[in-house]
Amino acid sequence: MSRRTLTIIFAALVAAGVLAGYNVAFAQDITADAVNLDQSTNLIWMLGAFLVFFMQAGFAFLGAGLIRAKNTTNYMTKSFMDFAIASLSFWAFGFALMWGTSALGVAGHTNFFLTDDGGGQTYVDFVFQMVFAGTAATIVAGAVAERTKTQSYLAYSFIIGAIIYPLYGHWVWGGGWLGALDKIDLPAAADYAGSGVVHAVGGFIALAGAAVVGPRIGKYNADGSSNILSGHNVPYVVIGTFILFFGWFGFNINTGDSIGLNAINTLMAGATGSVVALYIQMMRTGRMDILMACNGALAGLVGITAGAAFVEPWSAVAIGAIAAPIMMASVVFVDRVLKIDDPVSAISVHGTTGLWGLLAVGIFANGNGGVEGLVVGEGLQILSQLISVAVVLAWALVTGFALFLTLKFTMGVRASREEELEGLDLSEHNIPAYGEINLPEPSGADD
Amino acid sequence: MSRRTLTIIFAALVAAGVLAGYNVAFAQDITADAVNLDQSTNLIWMLGAFLVFFMQAGFAFLGAGLIRAKNTTNYMTKSFMDFAIASLSFWAFGFALMWGTSALGVAGHTNFFLTDDGGGQTYVDFVFQMVFAGTAATIVAGAVAERTKTQSYLAYSFIIGAIIYPLYGHWVWGGGWLGALDKIDLPAAADYAGSGVVHAVGGFIALAGAAVVGPRIGKYNADGSSNILSGHNVPYVVIGTFILFFGWFGFNINTGDSIGLNAINTLMAGATGSVVALYIQMMRTGRMDILMACNGALAGLVGITAGAAFVEPWSAVAIGAIAAPIMMASVVFVDRVLKIDDPVSAISVHGTTGLWGLLAVGIFANGNGGVEGLVVGEGLQILSQLISVAVVLAWALVTGFALFLTLKFTMGVRASREEELEGLDLSEHNIPAYGEINLPEPSGADD
Amino acid sequence: MSRRTLTIIFAALVAAGVLAGYNVAFAQDITADAVNLDQSTNLIWMLGAFLVFFMQAGFAFLGAGLIRAKNTTNYMTKSFMDFAIASLSFWAFGFALMWGTSALGVAGHTNFFLTDDGGGQTYVDFVFQMVFAGTAATIVAGAVAERTKTQSYLAYSFIIGAIIYPLYGHWVWGGGWLGALDKIDLPAAADYAGSGVVHAVGGFIALAGAAVVGPRIGKYNADGSSNILSGHNVPYVVIGTFILFFGWFGFNINTGDSIGLNAINTLMAGATGSVVALYIQMMRTGRMDILMACNGALAGLVGITAGAAFVEPWSAVAIGAIAAPIMMASVVFVDRVLKIDDPVSAISVHGTTGLWGLLAVGIFANGNGGVEGLVVGEGLQILSQLISVAVVLAWALVTGFALFLTLKFTMGVRASREEELEGLDLSEHNIPAYGEINLPEPSGADD
Repeated sequence: MSRRTLTIIFAALVAAGVLAGYNVAFAQDITADAVNLDQSTNLIWMLGAFLVFFMQAGFAFLGAGLIRAKNTTNYMTKSFMDFAIASLSFWAFGFALMWGTSALGVAGHTNFFLTDDGGGQTYVDFVFQMVFAGTAATIVAGAVAERTKTQSYLAYSFIIGAIIYPLYGHWVWGGGWLGALDKIDLPAAADYAGSGVVHAVGGFIALAGAAVVGPRIGKYNADGSSNILSGHNVPYVVIGTFILFFGWFGFNINTGDSIGLNAINTLMAGATGSVVALYIQMMRTGRMDILMACNGALAGLVGITAGAAFVEPWSAVAIGAIAAPIMMASVVFVDRVLKIDDPVSAISVHGTTGLWGLLAVGIFANGNGGVEGLVVGEGLQILSQLISVAVVLAWALVTGFALFLTLKFTMGVRASREEELEGLDLSEHNIPAYGEINLPEPSGADD
Repeated sequence: MSRRTLTIIFAALVAAGVLAGYNVAFAQDITADAVNLDQSTNLIWMLGAFLVFFMQAGFAFLGAGLIRAKNTTNYMTKSFMDFAIASLSFWAFGFALMWGTSALGVAGHTNFFLTDDGGGQTYVDFVFQMVFAGTAATIVAGAVAERTKTQSYLAYSFIIGAIIYPLYGHWVWGGGWLGALDKIDLPAAADYAGSGVVHAVGGFIALAGAAVVGPRIGKYNADGSSNILSGHNVPYVVIGTFILFFGWFGFNINTGDSIGLNAINTLMAGATGSVVALYIQMMRTGRMDILMACNGALAGLVGITAGAAFVEPWSAVAIGAIAAPIMMASVVFVDRVLKIDDPVSAISVHGTTGLWGLLAVGIFANGNGGVEGLVVGEGLQILSQLISVAVVLAWALVTGFALFLTLKFTMGVRASREEELEGLDLSEHNIPAYGEINLPEPSGADD
Repeated sequence: MSRRTLTIIFAALVAAGVLAGYNVAFAQDITADAVNLDQSTNLIWMLGAFLVFFMQAGFAFLGAGLIRAKNTTNYMTKSFMDFAIASLSFWAFGFALMWGTSALGVAGHTNFFLTDDGGGQTYVDFVFQMVFAGTAATIVAGAVAERTKTQSYLAYSFIIGAIIYPLYGHWVWGGGWLGALDKIDLPAAADYAGSGVVHAVGGFIALAGAAVVGPRIGKYNADGSSNILSGHNVPYVVIGTFILFFGWFGFNINTGDSIGLNAINTLMAGATGSVVALYIQMMRTGRMDILMACNGALAGLVGITAGAAFVEPWSAVAIGAIAAPIMMASVVFVDRVLKIDDPVSAISVHGTTGLWGLLAVGIFANGNGGVEGLVVGEGLQILSQLISVAVVLAWALVTGFALFLTLKFTMGVRASREEELEGLDLSEHNIPAYGEINLPEPSGADD
């Protein structure tokens, strides 16, 4: 069966890596550890990595809270396993493609399975990079929740960690062409911690995935209007957001004198995003919508990610304040115009706002690190940022659609109607999330 | 409407800050970043700040667990937004009042909107201070839970971050008069991490808020006896306490040789508080009461906060052991004598025990940092601590009552009887916390 | 009553420690603080300790999710209080037995109540050690869940922190005989962060406890076959696992150049363990079992704990991949052969896999720190590891059975049939975990 085949292929790959590592480790007598590392700098990167790892728990809570109880075990499974699988594929292939010696600025091609170069500094870098790859991977889980086959989702997780995330990452951070735009007299495209590399990539692959999988049963009516399929647990959403916010201090961390700047920018943008989203929504509906406020906080955080080290705190307030309405408009656009069903608004929070983050650098960068936005510079940076926006959008959509369409016509991506109505927890896992609580009867609703 | 007016005022303030920042950033060509910071020291403060930020998730879980399900979305909204709003008002006004150049020891008056002085070190300080302000703000949420209008609560959040917290903070930490008692031949009042500045301020504003808002429907009977309105989720309470305990290591963090001392004191005081509270309660009722043990842990932690750097570990055990019965007596006093309805015991855990923390420094301080308690010194420190206790009590109660009474006679502070019986989740938010679970029918009970 | 007697004894012990501390602190004029500590090294150990502390929240969530709702308050009580009590007994006795001056390599005998030697470095060490003791203690809570008297469990917590954990710890880490096997021409037994010292000790005491307490009502049928008593909350399990994984970066932390190596090994072993467990289980049952995947992650983490600093990343993948099936086989063995009822699989995840972790060092150690496994060395290390396996197994089982049998014949360890059927939350605490939700009626089932 395809399941068994995939399992065998995967196991063979891992075994190959282990064996390759074994051979290298003892054939070449690695001495890379001789480098004397700066302990406090390494500690900063490791603390950052630990916090970013913990964001996985935030994504798990947030997404679980925003979906229905009958698919919670399923979502939790995807949210947990995508990180694990993407970690393995990033170790096997992704790290090499992203951070290996560059071939023509397109892709790295050394250090597969971490066998060419090890030692303390590389390991520190590796862990930090690996948790970022895991973040990009898990962003998609929410957008395709409640109706996607788990096996296909796990196959996707492997590919994003192995290929999709690392290649764009190579172009921006790993020595590739977007970081070398100076050859055509433009500044390098700047993306401090990944508004584009992580969030826009994840967000637009999420769009492709949600579009290919199609909307949940009952989401859209015959006349094209859409229904709200409410989530089942508000505390999970709020705690998930707090955990993500906490982890974001690691995501945007910096060394030396700038550690405070990055933290204050992160804090201000997130806080402002939540306040602005809450009040806009209150003016629209007269209600205090904490779910929108949480998405507003996340939008502010995604928005500041590219510029965390390059802007002043007042700019972080502005970036967060603008990120919230952009996210909110995107939610309406995705739902009503594109008619793509995104249960957790991942496309808008991570994708659309990720693009805003890239642009914001071109506007607000104050010259830190040589990055000059419109407020101080000649305006060339924003051209590089626009190129970056176009490239990430094209890359994520093209590879996202290619991947999910391939999965659709091979393994299949969509659970059956019966499975979906019953809930994936029972049909795919036979493990109800809350075995002692009676949930509402499944219904086909307006479908 | 008042809602729209407030929104506009707030947006105008934020916009003013952004514009002010813009003007300053580029008119003055800031060079403050030139200071070369000690990276590992800054990392310690940032780690501390991140952990204190995460305490917000602890407060959210703890409070949600201790209230009824029908008000959980509402509590989560307050618990999330108070931090965000207090962060913005602290940025706009609070940081300047607390840490700006002091005018006569009463208030700082420079660096509004962070426009007079920026750069690495200031940003590190700012983030650390901001999360403390956010902690003081959120302490109140639990005490006024289940019956307070959200809009009024958010207005309160703005004021505590802008004025109330920073002014007392200025007096103790920011160069104000309580830190300068040496002019009258007393030692400076000592409060290492804020038993007074954060917890007693938050706790006694909570008392004022809960008194002005009045008890929940069904809490007190006609004969004055009180009912227990049980919370809805014990795991949330325990996990919330664990998160707070975890964050407290950041709250009480120290640099250099003392980092271990502060951590051990924090750990021992919290552990002892929980054990003592559990056993006292078991002797009273014959039951193992984990809710009381959690509050005992928090009482121990609040109690050690002022002295974390100034006492020996055995003293931390003693401080925690004494904090628990003080908190327990206070819970009874608030409920039966004052007849103030505090659903989460915030007044006793943070307020009363915060005062004990200030006093404990005067008793147990061992000479570290020049602070000498009764066990080693001449006993003058305890006079300064008593002054500090009197001042924080007066300040928090006066400003707390002034603020909540003002809100009461302007915006109104109390939800209507119908809203309260239905639960604020539906009446204010239209978002049930657990949309798929049937909760008990609302009732007016003994009221 | 015994309850009162125990309470008085315990209070007397704590009071003795406080008094002893008081006398020492001011009789001896401690000057140990004069040592100038390396701030960033201390920060690493403190960060590690904070993260390990936070694992308590992970154990609380994980175990609560895997048991039935009617015993959740009870489990939370044990999971919270065992840490607090073990911290106090470790402070009073454990730290001295483990880290005091060694008497013949068998036990330390100085620094009871931390009264012989204080100061910055000792305090840093102390906190780090104390949270490890707390981890060993709490491992047992899940294995004896749902039917064990809380008072007996708390008595156990005191003893493991005071005696059982520290003595074996002394032998391996504290200057005792297992760390000094060179006297018989063997390398010292290596256990970097406690696959043996923490996990195997906790896991096999858990076996003894679960065996003495006996299976839950309804677990085993008259014909010896076993039933699955499903847990009540899958999200708690997954979030608990994420928190534990996050905390494990602190558990396995290292200084200097090796900080990255330990983190990558931790990450790879945990990720691989979860993937392997998921796919093996899928081949067995055709279902995606996230509960097994979570245990697989934990098995990988336990497995890498002894060797985190001594192996290459490819070895961590191999160790994690092997840990998962070992854990799974052990689960079957414990359930079907030993017929010991372990609701959370603590015996297999921590005990059996802990032994694998010790052995794995003997196989995969690459020479770091002078530890040479079969892949590089002469093979003597594995003999030391085998000795270590035998000793930890014997020590944990003998002391575990002695302790729980003593408790059984004095205080009693088992709740009554009526209490167990009703659920311990009501019978021992009178605090339902979810007071507003109707749970299924208790039943005696197949019993």
